[in-house]
Amino acid sequence: MRTFHSPLQRRHAPEKELHNGAFVPFAEHPGRIDAILEALGPAEAPRDHGEEPILRIHPRAYVDFLKSAFGEWRAAGRPGDAGAYVWPVVGRRPLTLDRVDARLGQYSYDASTPIAEGTWEGSYWSVQSALSGLDAVLGGEAAAFALCRPPGHHAGADYMGGYCYLNAAAVAAEVAIAAGRRRVAILDIDYHHGNGTQDIFLDRGDVFFASIHADPKTDYPFYWGHADERGIGAGEGATLNLPLPRGTAFPAFETALERALTAIAGFDAELLVCSFGADTFVGDPISFFALETADYAPIARRIAGLGLPTLVVMEGGYAVEALGANVRSVLSGF
Amino acid sequence: MRTFHSPLQRRHAPEKELHNGAFVPFAEHPGRIDAILEALGPAEAPRDHGEEPILRIHPRAYVDFLKSAFGEWRAAGRPGDAGAYVWPVVGRRPLTLDRVDARLGQYSYDASTPIAEGTWEGSYWSVQSALSGLDAVLGGEAAAFALCRPPGHHAGADYMGGYCYLNAAAVAAEVAIAAGRRRVAILDIDYHHGNGTQDIFLDRGDVFFASIHADPKTDYPFYWGHADERGIGAGEGATLNLPLPRGTAFPAFETALERALTAIAGFDAELLVCSFGADTFVGDPISFFALETADYAPIARRIAGLGLPTLVVMEGGYAVEALGANVRSVLSGF
Repeated sequence: MRTFHSPLQRRHAPEKELHNGAFVPFAEHPGRIDAILEALGPAEAPRDHGEEPILRIHPRAYVDFLKSAFGEWRAAGRPGDAGAYVWPVVGRRPLTLDRVDARLGQYSYDASTPIAEGTWEGSYWSVQSALSGLDAVLGGEAAAFALCRPPGHHAGADYMGGYCYLNAAAVAAEVAIAAGRRRVAILDIDYHHGNGTQDIFLDRGDVFFASIHADPKTDYPFYWGHADERGIGAGEGATLNLPLPRGTAFPAFETALERALTAIAGFDAELLVCSFGADTFVGDPISFFALETADYAPIARRIAGLGLPTLVVMEGGYAVEALGANVRSVLSGF
Repeated sequence: MRTFHSPLQRRHAPEKELHNGAFVPFAEHPGRIDAILEALGPAEAPRDHGEEPILRIHPRAYVDFLKSAFGEWRAAGRPGDAGAYVWPVVGRRPLTLDRVDARLGQYSYDASTPIAEGTWEGSYWSVQSALSGLDAVLGGEAAAFALCRPPGHHAGADYMGGYCYLNAAAVAAEVAIAAGRRRVAILDIDYHHGNGTQDIFLDRGDVFFASIHADPKTDYPFYWGHADERGIGAGEGATLNLPLPRGTAFPAFETALERALTAIAGFDAELLVCSFGADTFVGDPISFFALETADYAPIARRIAGLGLPTLVVMEGGYAVEALGANVRSVLSGF
């Protein structure tokens, strides 16, 4: 399968994140890429599609913030990476705010998503990898793999969070629609709910979003991904959340997958974007499902059974020693 | 002036807070109380009014969370004080969430407000001090001083933030109304906007909230306190925000104060709660106004000129070496 990745994506490399009350080394590090490339072999460099596709999803003000925040942080005399400490939970509305701390909170919802020197560049090229994978699929390939990193599915139109800054899956889905695909489905099988993707398409009837993930009652991102979130307005019914308990292994995962695939089949999509996270793996250090490496191939075969042109976008997965094998397993099934 | 304070308030003593991207010692520490008591002399112990007055403002679920969060945090094997890392900025709605991290974010909006072992007890007695001061004022005293700590004005009905957990000023105002005062005014002259108090009374026509504070474009809490926030519904016009630029000294502060007092006089209040922060002092380490110690007495005299029974509630102020003199100065003017 054609695989797309840019070495520029590794320019995003924050030092640390806030986890369980203390700063710890940043889990979503460039070593994840090394592990995957070692298993798959070299990737194709993405074509530069510019900012225009990104701006179809993300407002200019948010994009400008991602570009400037690190410089402003350093200009304010701060060491390390730019990180928020206050968030507009209540009374949120459009505001023009001067201070970098104010805008860090305005455009994020967690303390795990610092902006480092290369965050914009890495995020930009992560989206370009997704768009180049989409080009391959639109050009006739049955499937292509975008080795995205940083991941994207927690990023909303105007917020970062969960290691995500730009939502590559959402940008790709939107570009597919702009290219003439009437209906697109997104299947998110990362351990964590794809809240950003859901928010972006929540009121849209032309993009179906289905997610299988750990129950947000116990797992990040907590405030999204509950089973009663089904879309709003024109998007009513075009969002499907299938939360599963910690400890879920292949049989229960497969049952949920069949439900998601049945729903997607009924949606009459012309193209599928699959947000794939390998953090459903039993050995993942920050997640609690129990899938084995060998489970990913049959999961992919079932998804491929939809018969839809499919762009696979890399999301999470933090068991670095198994990451290459897990990605190879899933790609073997397509 | 009668002053109320409980030694139990010092049971709230978190170790550290997130500030400018790193953990630093907690600025709102019990030493603030020592500095004030040294200047004022001993305080009266508050009477225990129980939880009922607190529950007039804060929902039971939030109160229970404040009581249990530290124990849950330690039960989860975490060191130190309980602190959030994710906040429900988007898609906030009532949710029943199991994990302590989820609920820490659900009930807060910043990373500066950890829950330590004695946070509930300290906050509880801080409110009791305010209620005992209110008793004195309702009983005929022209003014009384509640030496509250932790402070309260950043705490909303169901959220903590900015070193605040329970909103003593709001509880006192509500109890004054329950005691038969038809209309109550709250004047907040802390350096930072009293967002919690504002949110609590935003749609209320019987409580006027006026705040003089640093412009939220540059200063915490950023997302509240802009001049166009004037109340909603029945509270339309009963919120007055007077943001001032960094560097503001007495003359400009006095002009804003006259505006606030004119508005309060026109509201026909029967009682005044003054949220007083000494962080408007020129030497405050985390704030940027330029009031001098001697300025607080004439400020208080002007407020006393309203002729309203007045409960003064202590909020912020972090220049500990000057805190006693600044509080003595303000109280001398009442």
